[in-house]
Amino acid sequence: MKLATVKNANRDGQLVVVNRDLTKAVAVAQIAATMQAALDDWASIAPKLAEVAAALEKGAVKDSFAFDPSNAMAPLPRAYHWVDGSAYVNHVELVRKARGAQMPESFWTDPLVYQGGSDDFLGARQDVPVPSEDFGIDLEGEVAVITDDVPIGTKRAAAFEHIKLVMLVNDWSLRNLIPNELAKGFGFYQSKPATAFSPVAVTPDELGTAWSEAKVHLPLVVHVNGQPFGKPNAGVDMTFDFAKLIEHITVTRNARAGTVLGSGTISNYDRSLGSACIAERRTLEQIEQGKPVTSFLKFGDTVRIEMFDAQGRSLFGAIEQKVVRA
Amino acid sequence: MKLATVKNANRDGQLVVVNRDLTKAVAVAQIAATMQAALDDWASIAPKLAEVAAALEKGAVKDSFAFDPSNAMAPLPRAYHWVDGSAYVNHVELVRKARGAQMPESFWTDPLVYQGGSDDFLGARQDVPVPSEDFGIDLEGEVAVITDDVPIGTKRAAAFEHIKLVMLVNDWSLRNLIPNELAKGFGFYQSKPATAFSPVAVTPDELGTAWSEAKVHLPLVVHVNGQPFGKPNAGVDMTFDFAKLIEHITVTRNARAGTVLGSGTISNYDRSLGSACIAERRTLEQIEQGKPVTSFLKFGDTVRIEMFDAQGRSLFGAIEQKVVRA
Repeated sequence: MKLATVKNANRDGQLVVVNRDLTKAVAVAQIAATMQAALDDWASIAPKLAEVAAALEKGAVKDSFAFDPSNAMAPLPRAYHWVDGSAYVNHVELVRKARGAQMPESFWTDPLVYQGGSDDFLGARQDVPVPSEDFGIDLEGEVAVITDDVPIGTKRAAAFEHIKLVMLVNDWSLRNLIPNELAKGFGFYQSKPATAFSPVAVTPDELGTAWSEAKVHLPLVVHVNGQPFGKPNAGVDMTFDFAKLIEHITVTRNARAGTVLGSGTISNYDRSLGSACIAERRTLEQIEQGKPVTSFLKFGDTVRIEMFDAQGRSLFGAIEQKVVRA
Repeated sequence: MKLATVKNANRDGQLVVVNRDLTKAVAVAQIAATMQAALDDWASIAPKLAEVAAALEKGAVKDSFAFDPSNAMAPLPRAYHWVDGSAYVNHVELVRKARGAQMPESFWTDPLVYQGGSDDFLGARQDVPVPSEDFGIDLEGEVAVITDDVPIGTKRAAAFEHIKLVMLVNDWSLRNLIPNELAKGFGFYQSKPATAFSPVAVTPDELGTAWSEAKVHLPLVVHVNGQPFGKPNAGVDMTFDFAKLIEHITVTRNARAGTVLGSGTISNYDRSLGSACIAERRTLEQIEQGKPVTSFLKFGDTVRIEMFDAQGRSLFGAIEQKVVRA
């Protein structure tokens, strides 16, 4: 099934079930008022939502309405836990190579994650407010999953079943703020403004065979200002699958229901597929041409991130945003 | 007024108003079911809670009950944003000195913060589960504030009014996991298990003259296994007050209602006052005796953190926890 959250008078919006082709939705307040409420009690609520989804697909739901992605908030408009991996290690290696730094061998076996801001997620069509173009505004196209309660000490083999929903992410970054911030030693904070998510989150079964081994085996299609920018495959060169990442994040703590876990910027060794962030393209330009050529984003620039099934149908709807002055 | 959250059937518990001497409480579901609900609409809800608090103080509330700190969850049992500063820069300088490293001058003017796990906060009397004693289990005694909505770009002068509640924190750390984790460059994650909070959160006016310039001018009294460990004053040597920290965390993003903002481990230049974490004591032993003497915590060890007013009354109740095997 496919779920979304649409705007209402409340901060957490209204949970809706969306049909497969993303044209119709139905409110399910009688089952769960919000996405978080559904996740808090997923085992008993998901089957009820699935029944509504089946009925909606058959046209057997009376009070459905047209689904409008511009009226969608992030599927979880705010979350208690947003942790983002760097699962495509070749991307990390590449960026380090460009600045002449070695990457520790342990990066191939010990996942890298950071904890991001989750109190102010952006919907798929919301503008992206940034105080200054000088901050080096960049997209980061990713896949994320949402979990139920995952207890401390969960191993990879037991982690698969905790993945309840999948969605797309634009993990906006302010590249020019990163070097100083990471040099301070405590990780990202100011360099990571609000993160944006696809209009809908889907259960893994909606992905069919494209969901296997806790990876999404489909290209992430990225456009910048309407021009193709990259279409790396999220299932290729993902060093750590989502189950392994869940093992990593629960070594010393529980991950509670509604944890949003990101893949990190998708990146393939096959450079002909382009990139899912400008920083990587600039790195490749640096290596191949001696200097970066592509600029970071300016106010008014737009980014579109989407993923299609084998029949060309949009699976999650598009993240389509404009950068604006905060 | 003083507020707490007591256990019920829900993850977010039941908001209660607690009287000044922490003996009585009254549920306020008719005003706001949960602490987050109160914070989401603070301007209209706080006056109603204050009325209940005044009546409770006068003994004019019928359905009050004995307040039991062991039945309290964290005031916010889960939060959308937990960001912790290192506002006592002398502590950072000291720790660096012990390992022979220079601290950048910018640390005196540019605050250091990290974003912590907020999906699984611990109540003041909950055990602290850790997988191994080898992880270097340490307390960190701190003060934290909770804000309402703070817009991007808020300057210090406008930040004071956004501080709605104050509480105490034990920001548990796993010291032996920190070096490897920080070396990876993305900040803390596994080295920071679940954080614990005092039984009650209080409005700044409850602190009287001890609350000024967005600092709490009182000693934080720390006991380990029943023995005095430290009583550094939270108002002394705090390089960045909470208003300055709010300015820092809103440079590139909004901080939404219910943001929990910590001070970092309290530390005074006056070493006779002891420390609010074992790491600092070990650092002082290293400098003075050539090697650290005090061990990190073992399973079964207890930590008590409290703060008293001039009359010796506990302001927030005590955080009093035992470390256990996860």
